[in-house]
Amino acid sequence: MQLIKHPKIEQIEKILQRPSIESSSLDSLVREVFQKVTNEGDKALFKYTKKFDKVDLQSLEVTKEEFLEAEKIVSEDLKKAILIAKNNIQKFHKNQIQVEKEVETMLGIKCYRKSLPIQKVGLYIPGGTAPLFSTVLMLGIPAKIAGCDEIILTTPPNLEGKIHPAILWTANQTGITKIFKVGGSQAIAGLTIGTESIPKVYKIFGPGNQFVVKAKQIAMEYGVAMDMPAGPSEVCVITDKKANPKFIASDLLAQAEHGSDSQVVLISDSLEILEKTKLEVEIQLETLPRKELTQKSLEYAKFILTRNIVEAFQISNIYAPEHLIIQTQNYKQNSKLVKNAGSVFLGEYTPESLGDYASGTNHSLPTNGFAKNYSGVSVDSFVKKITFQEASKNGLKNIAKTVMTMAKAETLEAHSRAVEVRS
Amino acid sequence: MQLIKHPKIEQIEKILQRPSIESSSLDSLVREVFQKVTNEGDKALFKYTKKFDKVDLQSLEVTKEEFLEAEKIVSEDLKKAILIAKNNIQKFHKNQIQVEKEVETMLGIKCYRKSLPIQKVGLYIPGGTAPLFSTVLMLGIPAKIAGCDEIILTTPPNLEGKIHPAILWTANQTGITKIFKVGGSQAIAGLTIGTESIPKVYKIFGPGNQFVVKAKQIAMEYGVAMDMPAGPSEVCVITDKKANPKFIASDLLAQAEHGSDSQVVLISDSLEILEKTKLEVEIQLETLPRKELTQKSLEYAKFILTRNIVEAFQISNIYAPEHLIIQTQNYKQNSKLVKNAGSVFLGEYTPESLGDYASGTNHSLPTNGFAKNYSGVSVDSFVKKITFQEASKNGLKNIAKTVMTMAKAETLEAHSRAVEVRS
Repeated sequence: MQLIKHPKIEQIEKILQRPSIESSSLDSLVREVFQKVTNEGDKALFKYTKKFDKVDLQSLEVTKEEFLEAEKIVSEDLKKAILIAKNNIQKFHKNQIQVEKEVETMLGIKCYRKSLPIQKVGLYIPGGTAPLFSTVLMLGIPAKIAGCDEIILTTPPNLEGKIHPAILWTANQTGITKIFKVGGSQAIAGLTIGTESIPKVYKIFGPGNQFVVKAKQIAMEYGVAMDMPAGPSEVCVITDKKANPKFIASDLLAQAEHGSDSQVVLISDSLEILEKTKLEVEIQLETLPRKELTQKSLEYAKFILTRNIVEAFQISNIYAPEHLIIQTQNYKQNSKLVKNAGSVFLGEYTPESLGDYASGTNHSLPTNGFAKNYSGVSVDSFVKKITFQEASKNGLKNIAKTVMTMAKAETLEAHSRAVEVRS
Repeated sequence: MQLIKHPKIEQIEKILQRPSIESSSLDSLVREVFQKVTNEGDKALFKYTKKFDKVDLQSLEVTKEEFLEAEKIVSEDLKKAILIAKNNIQKFHKNQIQVEKEVETMLGIKCYRKSLPIQKVGLYIPGGTAPLFSTVLMLGIPAKIAGCDEIILTTPPNLEGKIHPAILWTANQTGITKIFKVGGSQAIAGLTIGTESIPKVYKIFGPGNQFVVKAKQIAMEYGVAMDMPAGPSEVCVITDKKANPKFIASDLLAQAEHGSDSQVVLISDSLEILEKTKLEVEIQLETLPRKELTQKSLEYAKFILTRNIVEAFQISNIYAPEHLIIQTQNYKQNSKLVKNAGSVFLGEYTPESLGDYASGTNHSLPTNGFAKNYSGVSVDSFVKKITFQEASKNGLKNIAKTVMTMAKAETLEAHSRAVEVRS
C-alpha cells in the first residue's frame, strides 16, 4: 500500500495511472486464430480447444443430457440464491425499458423512436478457476428482456470436456439453451465469422483475458459490435472519519482477490481512518484463501489523504472508477458529486459484493477510465433505437421551405428537389 | 442501375454487399499524424493545415470577430430555416431524456440509474464543397441537452483561413463557441491527445473522409470513445405499385448526389414501378447540377423485384440500410416489419431530406450494415448511465445469504466476507 498525502489535483492523473496493457505481440497471434477459423470453421475450433483447453471434443454444443446433469449437481442452496439474484436483476433491468412518446415537432410532422432488439448476440463467459455463473445472469437477463432472437453463449470446457454445472443451470434458468464449449479468442472468432456449429452474431458481450479482449477488438473490424473496452477490475472507496475500518478493509480485500492486476484506491480526509484501515486489511488478509494473490494486488493499492471530502470526489472523478463505494455520513448528499463511475455503492451496508451478485444492478461495468465515456451493460446494450418520421401533405408544406433553403445552402440540389416534386 | 428479379433470400447478403474499404495503407499515415501531434502539439497542427488545407494560420481558435462577421454574412432566409430546424431537433431530442424510477429490488435494497453527461466531447465537421451546418445542429443540440461541460468543434479552414459563416452562425446559435480551424486526421489527433490550443476530449463525433474515420479508430486506442463506425451514405426505398415514380426517383437521386460511393437500393413487388422509376430517374437527372457524380453512383444502384412486400422487408432487414423510405399504401402497418434500419421515412410525403435537415430526428446514422447493432446519434450518445444502490441494515440482512452463497460458489471468499463482517 502506498500512502499519498494531499496530492495536487493536477498530479492525480499520473498518480492513479493504470498499468498499460501491451498488445502488439497479441495482435498477430489473434489474427491468425481469426484466419484459421475463417478457413477451417469448426475444425479450427476443435484444434484450438485441444491445444489450449487440453481436451479433445467430438461436438461443441452442450446437449440436453448435460443440462439435465447440471440440474442434478447444483446444490439447492445455490439454486435458491441464483433465483433470488435473477429476480432482483430482472426487476431492475425491466425498469430500463422506457417507451418514448411520439413528438409532433411541427404541425403535420410526427417523429418517434422505437427500441428494437439486436437480433443475434453472443455472450462470452470465461473459464479459469471460478465459474462465473453470475455473469450469465448479468448478460443473459438484459438480452432476454430486450428480446434478442438468438442468444449464443460460449465458454471453455474443463479437462473432461464439460461446462461447470452452475453455468449451465443458470443459463437454462435465464432461457439460454444454445451453449458452445469453446473459449478464448477462438470463441470470439467463431461468433464473429460463424462456423458449421456456431451462428454468426451482431454483438459480443462478456469479460475475458487479454486474448479475448484483443479478439473483440478485431471482431469490430468484421462489423461486429462489442459491449465495451476492457481492463482489470477496480474499486475506489471514499470515506470520512466516521466510517468503520473493518467494513472498508473488507471491501478493499474483495476487490484485491480478483487478481494481482486489480486496482484498489482508498480516499479519505482522515489520516486516522487510512491508518486503521491499513491495519484491518492486514488482519483480515491473514485468513483469506487467496491470500498471496490478494496481497500482491494490495502492494499497488493507493491510500490518498485529502483536505476534505469534496476533494476526494474530485480525485475519484478524474480516476473514474468501475466501482465507487461511498462510506461517509452524508453519502446521499455526497453522491451528487459523482461525475464519472461505473456503479456506486451508498453507505456502510452496501458492500460492492451486493452489486456483483444480487442487488439488481449490472456488474458488467466500464474499467480502465472508460467510466468517463461508457455505461455499464444494460437493456440499452441489447437494443438499437430506430427513429421514424411521417409528414402529412400539409406537414410537408409546413417544412418545405426550411428544408429546401438548407439543402440549397449545402449545395445539395437533389435534396431540395425531393421536397419540391411533392409540393 | 441493375435490375434483379426474384433473388433468393440467401443470396441477398452477397447481392447487396457494400464495397469494402481498404485501410491498411492509411493506418501508418494516420498513426504518424498522431505521433507528430503528440510530440509537437499545435506546431504539428499548423504544419498539417498548411500541407493539406493550403493555408498558413497564425492561430487555431475562431475569434469573436469571426463570429460577428458570420452573423452579417448569413442570409436572413437561411437563418430562419436553421432556427426552425433547430427548434424541431430540440423538441425531438429533449423527449429522449427519460428519468427512471428507483426500484426496490427487495426489501431494503434500493437501486437506481442516473444519466450524467460525458464531460468533454469533440464534434468534427468536415470541410469540402458543402458547408455541413446541418451536422452542427445534429451533434451540437443533443450535446447541449445532455449537458456536456465542454463541447469542442473542429472543422478545416478554407484557403483564406476562414470557416464557412453558416457553420459559425449555426454553432453559435447552438451554444458552441469553442471552434478550432483544423480538419482531417490531425483534428481527431488534437482532440484525442490535447494540444496547447485544443482541449483533450472523452468522445468524438462526426462524419469525415477515410482519414478521419481511421483517426477515430486510432483514438479509441487512446481511450477516447467515438459515435459509431462509418461508411458511405445509403438509402433503401420499399414501394408497392401505388407509389409515385416521380417521388421515388427524387429520393434515389437525393441519395446518389452525396457521392459516387453512395448506396442506392429500390425494392418493389411491382416491375412496372421499377421500370417507371428508372425512366423518371433519367429524366430528373438531366437538370441536376451534380449530374455526373450522381450518375456515377447510380450505375451501382440495385433495383430488386420481389414476390411481395413482406419479402421486400426481409431483404431490407438483411441489408440494414442507414435510411429506409417506405412508400406503400399500408406504410404504417408495414413499418412494423422493420428490424434493422437507421431512420425510417413513412409515406409518400416524407422524403429523406426532411430527416436530413429539419423533421427533428438525427441525421447521424449507422451505415455499412451497422444499423444491425448501432443506433444513430441521440442524447444517449452524450451521456453515460451510472447505477447506484443502497442497502439498509435490514436490506443487507435480507440479501446476505444470497450474496454469500454465490460468492463462495465462485470461490471469491473475500466477497462473501465483505457481507459477513457487516452482518
